[in-house]
Amino acid sequence: MAVLFSTRWEKHTKRWLDAIQGALTDVTVFNGADNDVDWAAIEYALVWQPPPGMLHQCSNLKAVFNLGAGVDYVLEHSDLPTDVPLVRRVDPCLTEGMIEYVTHWVLHIHRGFARYRNYQNEPKWRPHWYPRPQDRRVGILGLGALGGAAARQLQSIGFDVAGWSRSSKTIDGVTSFAGDDQLEAFLNRTEILVCLLPLTPATKGIINAKTLAQLPEGAQVINVARGGHVVDEDLIKALDSDHLAGAVLDVFHEEPLPLDHPFWKTPKVTITPHVASLTNPETACAEIAKDITRMEAGKSARYVVDRDVGY
Amino acid sequence: MAVLFSTRWEKHTKRWLDAIQGALTDVTVFNGADNDVDWAAIEYALVWQPPPGMLHQCSNLKAVFNLGAGVDYVLEHSDLPTDVPLVRRVDPCLTEGMIEYVTHWVLHIHRGFARYRNYQNEPKWRPHWYPRPQDRRVGILGLGALGGAAARQLQSIGFDVAGWSRSSKTIDGVTSFAGDDQLEAFLNRTEILVCLLPLTPATKGIINAKTLAQLPEGAQVINVARGGHVVDEDLIKALDSDHLAGAVLDVFHEEPLPLDHPFWKTPKVTITPHVASLTNPETACAEIAKDITRMEAGKSARYVVDRDVGY
Repeated sequence: MAVLFSTRWEKHTKRWLDAIQGALTDVTVFNGADNDVDWAAIEYALVWQPPPGMLHQCSNLKAVFNLGAGVDYVLEHSDLPTDVPLVRRVDPCLTEGMIEYVTHWVLHIHRGFARYRNYQNEPKWRPHWYPRPQDRRVGILGLGALGGAAARQLQSIGFDVAGWSRSSKTIDGVTSFAGDDQLEAFLNRTEILVCLLPLTPATKGIINAKTLAQLPEGAQVINVARGGHVVDEDLIKALDSDHLAGAVLDVFHEEPLPLDHPFWKTPKVTITPHVASLTNPETACAEIAKDITRMEAGKSARYVVDRDVGY
Repeated sequence: MAVLFSTRWEKHTKRWLDAIQGALTDVTVFNGADNDVDWAAIEYALVWQPPPGMLHQCSNLKAVFNLGAGVDYVLEHSDLPTDVPLVRRVDPCLTEGMIEYVTHWVLHIHRGFARYRNYQNEPKWRPHWYPRPQDRRVGILGLGALGGAAARQLQSIGFDVAGWSRSSKTIDGVTSFAGDDQLEAFLNRTEILVCLLPLTPATKGIINAKTLAQLPEGAQVINVARGGHVVDEDLIKALDSDHLAGAVLDVFHEEPLPLDHPFWKTPKVTITPHVASLTNPETACAEIAKDITRMEAGKSARYVVDRDVGY
């Protein structure tokens, strides 16, 4: 069996190639960056933001495995054959990394820990009271594999958690809002907003002047989905006007975030460089191998993307 | 019934007095800071670091309720009548605050989030890989009400958690070490050390040059117990020599931490002003009322301190 590997993570190529070899038997792995690729031999492609046109050269492709959770890039840029299933990444590592990131930053905001770093610089000893988690309303935009897992973790810590998604979801102890009609009510009650939506035509720019104004004064935003969910100028205005108390951003319209982007110097913005949850080569390849085994046995892969909705 | 209230938290006196009145019926509450205290009438005392000698004036005292989890101060300084039970604070709020604090700072260290603040100041886009939580060894010194709860929470996130205590404890999924003989083995395997011990003659200065040297290189320390657990000079030396990569300290020998203490300016130290978990007046008074009801019915209070061991 021949497999294509193509990502933009050049630093980690060897680890990925080893992981693919380790997970599959009798496999020839072609690196899309090399010159000796036998395009017609390739049956499965493992990709993250592959160059436009590359996948179209694979005339015998059976499936494309996206190496991240969000398939927005590959759908928009990769000229993907329509008859080939596109599989998004769902794996325990991706979920646990996201749970860690979201839990950390929600706690960080909830307890106001950032101010103690400033006090230490002065120095000054000034303790602050904090509310109980049951009195802190966290709202998760998107209750899929990642949003649902984050919601459950925050609920187990005691937070008052609600979620919003396209269609209504049921998670024990989490209040569910669904559809355009209920978005405003969801935002009205949300003090800490976490975006974990897929990026689709329906969710592009969903964090904008109108929706930010529907959050209560002093709310904070954590974006761990895609930069395209946010209208950057609107977010900066909401921060500058003190309507929002802060934002933690892991994803951006352009990555790396250009060094002249105003986010870098906005005091209430915390930037992390798209590290909320990194795909682990070993666990991802083990999951992909399971799907390839299913497909070779005539079954379909799990987590095949519905191209009509975009995830 | 008459009750004495005496703490050093002057800012919150009204909230405490209201909470006591709200939790008990037919109660007269005396504030130890006032002049009109009827010392002989007092049956129960609710205290945090009461002035030396004060409790000795209460000739009809039935119990002393300490308003924090640690009773080290009241045992050492308060000239407490030996025949009066001393009750330590165990309540859901104190536990949830500690779970929040410990979870946040363990995740903060585990994921190395502090560096991204420095990168943002430059600015610089530099993502870092991180290990899975199952490959991160966290060690909790003390597996009592707070340490046990923190261990369970960290274990549920996926960390490789061990605990050390005077006598062996059983917590599902948590490796238990006990007694002086097993302290070194516990420290040898611990990358992130969390101190949640009671302060007793046996645990005073337990974080010292010898025990710090038993941690692996690059380990970090979180102290949320008492300042007296740490030999400050030894901790600073371990940080300055790069044996330790960092320390998060919430408690100190003297509080507020004197402004000329070297901790303030040690780059690898993060200081929070004894806010890891604050006693919530409403939930604490509800728990104390339950114990007073038990005692009035001839039963003993829960969580009575064993003065021989000091907690």
